[in-house]
Amino acid sequence: MKHGANIYKYAKVANCKVDEIIDFSSNINLYQPKCKVKTTNDLIVKYGDTSYKDLKKIISKNYGVKKTQISLFNGATSAIFALLNSLKLNKVYLYVPLYGEYEKAIPKTAKIKKIDRFKNIYKTPEKNSTVIFVNPSTPDGKYYDLKKLFKIWQEQNCTVILDESFLEFENLPSLRQEINNYKKLYIIQSFSKFFSCAGVRIGAVFSDKANIKKLKQPIWNLSSFDAEFLTQRLNDKKFVKKTRELHKKQKKELKKTLKNSKLFSKVYESDSNFFLVKNTKKTLFKYLLKHKILVRTCGSFDNLSDNYLRFAVKDKVSHKKLKEALREFHD
Amino acid sequence: MKHGANIYKYAKVANCKVDEIIDFSSNINLYQPKCKVKTTNDLIVKYGDTSYKDLKKIISKNYGVKKTQISLFNGATSAIFALLNSLKLNKVYLYVPLYGEYEKAIPKTAKIKKIDRFKNIYKTPEKNSTVIFVNPSTPDGKYYDLKKLFKIWQEQNCTVILDESFLEFENLPSLRQEINNYKKLYIIQSFSKFFSCAGVRIGAVFSDKANIKKLKQPIWNLSSFDAEFLTQRLNDKKFVKKTRELHKKQKKELKKTLKNSKLFSKVYESDSNFFLVKNTKKTLFKYLLKHKILVRTCGSFDNLSDNYLRFAVKDKVSHKKLKEALREFHD
Repeated sequence: MKHGANIYKYAKVANCKVDEIIDFSSNINLYQPKCKVKTTNDLIVKYGDTSYKDLKKIISKNYGVKKTQISLFNGATSAIFALLNSLKLNKVYLYVPLYGEYEKAIPKTAKIKKIDRFKNIYKTPEKNSTVIFVNPSTPDGKYYDLKKLFKIWQEQNCTVILDESFLEFENLPSLRQEINNYKKLYIIQSFSKFFSCAGVRIGAVFSDKANIKKLKQPIWNLSSFDAEFLTQRLNDKKFVKKTRELHKKQKKELKKTLKNSKLFSKVYESDSNFFLVKNTKKTLFKYLLKHKILVRTCGSFDNLSDNYLRFAVKDKVSHKKLKEALREFHD
Repeated sequence: MKHGANIYKYAKVANCKVDEIIDFSSNINLYQPKCKVKTTNDLIVKYGDTSYKDLKKIISKNYGVKKTQISLFNGATSAIFALLNSLKLNKVYLYVPLYGEYEKAIPKTAKIKKIDRFKNIYKTPEKNSTVIFVNPSTPDGKYYDLKKLFKIWQEQNCTVILDESFLEFENLPSLRQEINNYKKLYIIQSFSKFFSCAGVRIGAVFSDKANIKKLKQPIWNLSSFDAEFLTQRLNDKKFVKKTRELHKKQKKELKKTLKNSKLFSKVYESDSNFFLVKNTKKTLFKYLLKHKILVRTCGSFDNLSDNYLRFAVKDKVSHKKLKEALREFHD
């Protein structure tokens, strides 16, 4: 499974409707209030404001960056591709395991090196190289205090690409403010995960004003509907409060379910909205799919295998179904 | 005015609300039925089907190309940027005047040559070069029978980029089928104009299967809402019929208004949904803006100037207001 969330493919395998799949593979916020955006002709017919002024204003406010330090793309994956293709990459260090699109997005002319976060995190990258780090990380959800690493990166004059897309679930400290001090820092921000909107394709790069100016991109690159949706949601303060309350409660529930099942040799500690487990029961993925439960296998991550599974935190009903299925599992 | 449709900027100049501007600068289909897409959580929360299967199916049917010959982007402008950046461009011939984003999208490493469509259209491009042609053309709306030119391009082994985004208003013959015969042909297709959805950011490249495969792009590059909207609209047969009826009628009305005003030394013949006029009254743009009427000045087009204006075909009420304003104009 290269990506989570391929419910379309697995619904066929499970011989059921897409809607019937309980999707533990997709690590989207479980708090999902209804969309309130009105699809007026203004939104559909007219060209949008090319500066995406209102959206940048609320991003600027919520994330504590200047409007001139924000570049918006049609999804964080597009942001990653655009950024990695605009930088003149020579040697790139990936802190693995990490989100698979990073490696795909690196131009073939660049040399890729991998640093195993689990084993050797303080290995020093070469001078003037580029480092890519996801914090909290995937697929394990661990949050790293990056002080020491960031110091090493600066000493090595590295271009630093830091993906903080899962930071908000537990309101953890960000390195965002460092873009004012270190010109070679780029922060990747997805809004899909925390704001429950994977169908809304908007992601951002935060960096120094001069870097943002260089990140040239096509005009009108965002859907007007998507821009309006995200503007409204980022302005919704209740959403953040309710998310964190629900997240805390449900995360506890899922952790308990996974641990109590006794099926996994390890349930990783997580600072995000998903859990990585080490699974020794090779038939579990298929068994769960028969119960219309889709989980993320981790064979596509470096140094992991399909014996590792990732479960996203979900609602009570989904957890109950998972619990029942796990209880009835026999190797 | 670099782009049409900057109502946000000009509403400020005219000291009125964006909604009050009568926008003749934006050449969007004037038939604009209400959006019927339901913004369910399925559309917002879930990751979309990365293959955009349903959308490609209807595009394939309506445009007579195979699904494997279609690549979808977040807007035709994004398609242009991606295509021009993926081709190893050496020498590029632009048939000018043409849509300004083409020149912007050409990498700096390429050499740009310009061929004036009005004066010297059959000038032979160099062997193995790239040609870019928009048909019907902007800002004049002229449709060219490309047989002779296409033969020249093939003889010169040119990579041919042909933008047919305005072809459907008058159901004119396309070169789309030639992608089966000439492997170096790329067709750019915007859906915003004819399908009245500039806020919906989807555009396509049609080309040979092998070319489409090479046009690598980020996963989930389309808004789920936008993909659903366009799928529904492309399936709406009534929309096409009603558009062509209304277009024919209103185009006649606008042409008459422009000609009868006696303000223009030339009203160009058009095969599209807009008219280019040669204007000798330098204060007209500002005068119209005072009447909350925005038109497109053509100073950003090669070989034209702000003395040329472009008017999009619009509804009866808008035409009436334009007619009155033009009648009361004094130099």
